[in-house]
Amino acid sequence: MSDCPLLPNHFAGRWQTATDEGTPLLDPVKGTPLVRVGRAGLDLAEGFAFARTQGGNALRAMTYRQRATLLGEIVKVLQANRDAYYEIATANCGTVTKDSAVDIDGAIFTLGFYAKQGDALGDATCLLDGARIRMAKDPVFQTQHVMSPTRGVALFINAFNFPSWGLWEKAAPALLSGVPVIVKPATATAWLTQRMVKDVVDAGILPAGALSIVCGSSAGLMDQLQPFDVVSFTGSAETAKIIRSHPAVAEKSVRCNIEADSLNSALLDPAAAEGDEAFNLLVSEVAREMTVKSGQKCTAIRRVFVPRALYAAAAKAIGAKLAKYPVGDPRNESVRMGALVSREQFNSVTAGIAQIKTEAEVLFDGSESPLVDADASVAACVAPVLLGSKQPVNARVLHEVEVFGPVATLMAYDDEAQAYDLIRRGEGSLVCSLYSADPAFTARATLALADSHGRVHAISPDVAAVQSGHGNVMPMSLHGGPGRAGGGEELGGLRALGFYHRRSAVQASVAALDILAQTATPFTL
Amino acid sequence: MSDCPLLPNHFAGRWQTATDEGTPLLDPVKGTPLVRVGRAGLDLAEGFAFARTQGGNALRAMTYRQRATLLGEIVKVLQANRDAYYEIATANCGTVTKDSAVDIDGAIFTLGFYAKQGDALGDATCLLDGARIRMAKDPVFQTQHVMSPTRGVALFINAFNFPSWGLWEKAAPALLSGVPVIVKPATATAWLTQRMVKDVVDAGILPAGALSIVCGSSAGLMDQLQPFDVVSFTGSAETAKIIRSHPAVAEKSVRCNIEADSLNSALLDPAAAEGDEAFNLLVSEVAREMTVKSGQKCTAIRRVFVPRALYAAAAKAIGAKLAKYPVGDPRNESVRMGALVSREQFNSVTAGIAQIKTEAEVLFDGSESPLVDADASVAACVAPVLLGSKQPVNARVLHEVEVFGPVATLMAYDDEAQAYDLIRRGEGSLVCSLYSADPAFTARATLALADSHGRVHAISPDVAAVQSGHGNVMPMSLHGGPGRAGGGEELGGLRALGFYHRRSAVQASVAALDILAQTATPFTL
Repeated sequence: MSDCPLLPNHFAGRWQTATDEGTPLLDPVKGTPLVRVGRAGLDLAEGFAFARTQGGNALRAMTYRQRATLLGEIVKVLQANRDAYYEIATANCGTVTKDSAVDIDGAIFTLGFYAKQGDALGDATCLLDGARIRMAKDPVFQTQHVMSPTRGVALFINAFNFPSWGLWEKAAPALLSGVPVIVKPATATAWLTQRMVKDVVDAGILPAGALSIVCGSSAGLMDQLQPFDVVSFTGSAETAKIIRSHPAVAEKSVRCNIEADSLNSALLDPAAAEGDEAFNLLVSEVAREMTVKSGQKCTAIRRVFVPRALYAAAAKAIGAKLAKYPVGDPRNESVRMGALVSREQFNSVTAGIAQIKTEAEVLFDGSESPLVDADASVAACVAPVLLGSKQPVNARVLHEVEVFGPVATLMAYDDEAQAYDLIRRGEGSLVCSLYSADPAFTARATLALADSHGRVHAISPDVAAVQSGHGNVMPMSLHGGPGRAGGGEELGGLRALGFYHRRSAVQASVAALDILAQTATPFTL
Repeated sequence: MSDCPLLPNHFAGRWQTATDEGTPLLDPVKGTPLVRVGRAGLDLAEGFAFARTQGGNALRAMTYRQRATLLGEIVKVLQANRDAYYEIATANCGTVTKDSAVDIDGAIFTLGFYAKQGDALGDATCLLDGARIRMAKDPVFQTQHVMSPTRGVALFINAFNFPSWGLWEKAAPALLSGVPVIVKPATATAWLTQRMVKDVVDAGILPAGALSIVCGSSAGLMDQLQPFDVVSFTGSAETAKIIRSHPAVAEKSVRCNIEADSLNSALLDPAAAEGDEAFNLLVSEVAREMTVKSGQKCTAIRRVFVPRALYAAAAKAIGAKLAKYPVGDPRNESVRMGALVSREQFNSVTAGIAQIKTEAEVLFDGSESPLVDADASVAACVAPVLLGSKQPVNARVLHEVEVFGPVATLMAYDDEAQAYDLIRRGEGSLVCSLYSADPAFTARATLALADSHGRVHAISPDVAAVQSGHGNVMPMSLHGGPGRAGGGEELGGLRALGFYHRRSAVQASVAALDILAQTATPFTL
């Protein structure tokens, strides 16, 4: 294993290498080992205490502007090492360059966004939430709500699909809030996370204890959490359940943010016609969403709702787009879609397609074309598959089973109200996109669907050239969804800071409130 | 049992009487049965579905202003029946008139507050959260965050100490948000809740399904919850754990608000002197907080921190105040403090005092005076007890065990930093009060303690005449606390609406956002 190094963890303020052999991370196209990760021998209690006290005290002693400056310096380090990240992503994630960019450049953009937002908060150490409120006729006694950084650590248990963005979209608001971070990346793709943390730590930007990484098993991490810590999890509903039921959350009120699977929808205006602008926008977006990162995006479109009359035309048009996506080794420039992250995911997606087929017909199957530069018996490559159902009202699996790959199901609806009902059968999703040239329909559908989605993304001809994409998570917009999507909230500009702050009502004389206000800044959205 | 009527439940839009004998509610002073409650034979699935669809659809079809009008009409009904509520409180809660007022008039005030706040939201059906944000150089595509009422029911599992306020402080923001309410009052004091619901239902103010009540066992209620429902619980940490671990919360992401036990503190400025204004304000507030509702307030002061030099003087002064509280039957006008709600609570408080005594000395014990018009072997009356410790750093029980009665512990601290550390050993509380003539100390202590408290209440000489009281929960201020206090947030003016709304980022053309804005109003704090 000499050409397969064991990556150290940064924990308790120092680099620590596992005392066992660790777990190898593989190239998902070739199946070859790249590096190893592990955490045998780590003293968890020591590392959490170090982060909580050393890291927390140092960060809280800084102002928002000072911490924003740290984020800006992280951006510089990541930009300087960008080429290495793309190489790691190709090797360990199996992604084509454009897909690696979503993860890597998406992270850098998000960090830069929070650096700017944080700078605007200025030289304050806490936030004023809302206006002062008089408590009596005499204005001497008033209430001022304040938000203070929580006196604990933020534990991130992250998903395999975004080893870069998944860390930084959470770490940016946490560090800006003054809360130290401990990240546990998903093992399959942990290399990129580890390398980025290494570069940032080695650059000496952050105070000791502000950023730690534990690769390998997550066993015992939750046991370390204390009442003022927070935990943020991205991944499966099964693991989400374990985290939420853990005594740290159930008994100690550890704040918990969950972003879980969901069956995101795309809805075409009932007034659309074959080949019109709304129709074409839907077709392009569905094909793009199915294939970006091989469909391994929690925000990807899984269910496509079109008026019954347009079902066949939409199937044909989406299939024609998907046929233009050669699948295989991302190192070959003709390849437009790389691999899934692992052979386990390959098996899971293959099984999921079989499950969907029990209720749907196959409208397009890219697996009829051969893989490019990849051995189908080794590579974790799955071609795009479009399934379809003309009777989605009678379906169950189609609304419940998320296949985490380049797979979506086209469904026919009869009227607007039925379309809303069908979309809601996802029981809460991250995002729903609307395709229409009619702003009245868009506004109406938005109001009908907003309560079951963390984000409603409306694509109309006037925004076609500038819209940010159904599946792209922008830092200024909320990310997270109710119900099945986990009920969490991330990003949304400064809204993200709420998770890392504690809100408190201060009832006091205006003399005391005036002094308090000197070290605070208004929290304005 | 002919003079002990079985109270019906309002559920699934009709009055339903239990099919068994139910459980008798007692007079906690005399031990005699008053009424019976029970829910045997209720079809839970039917009632939850009725509330969710009938109640929810009707409420969501109204504007904020229309729903605010409903709250105003509830106020009128409750005011018209106020005398009956005071009679029920005296009989079933054992409270003196002033304590009944906290529960009854506190509820009416809170409803009136939300009626006014809701009216100001006007003829809108959803809320705009923050400003529009440009997503590209071209301003045609922007993000607007919106808040929409959740498409589900609000289940309230309530505590025994506030049968009136406990319902209405939650129902006011829920109904204003357009979310139907199902309340499960604590059995011991359910009569007042049932009577108020009966008066409001009989007045025909609310749409069918908007307000339901289930008295008796809570078994199976959580099983009825669906992803867009919410549950709000007030009570013990043990039950909170069961609720948070329930599959509805852990698997379906049902939103859950917990307000649990906490060990609230009072802190005297280290610069205070015996008999000065800050000292006297602390003494009065502690004695009041210990005795209001016989100390059965989740916000009551449990731990009192004074500079070591003032320990003996504070003990003497607080004891002298407590000696002026005759305890017994609230029907006797000389009585200033009535009973606990039940003999079970009497046993629990007696056991709690014994536990505290393992680490504290007795500074004042009111049980040396006889009860007024009450039989000590029957009545749930406990006299006020002040305990004390000069070594709170070495204590464990004092910071962990909440005695839910007229009991507090005085503790000596050596310096400001130590006082903060000791207060934080409560691991998160609802409220902390500060007593000081120095606004600089108040501001400093506030910033040190805000992150571990839902509310910081600062009493200084300039606000002494108008301050709202350490333990009084005002609707304009946040109620709830982190960690041990459950991590929940209630009230806080319009902040309370957040729990009953879903936040969503709408990314769309300004044409669609303009139309959407016509039925929305800004959410401003």
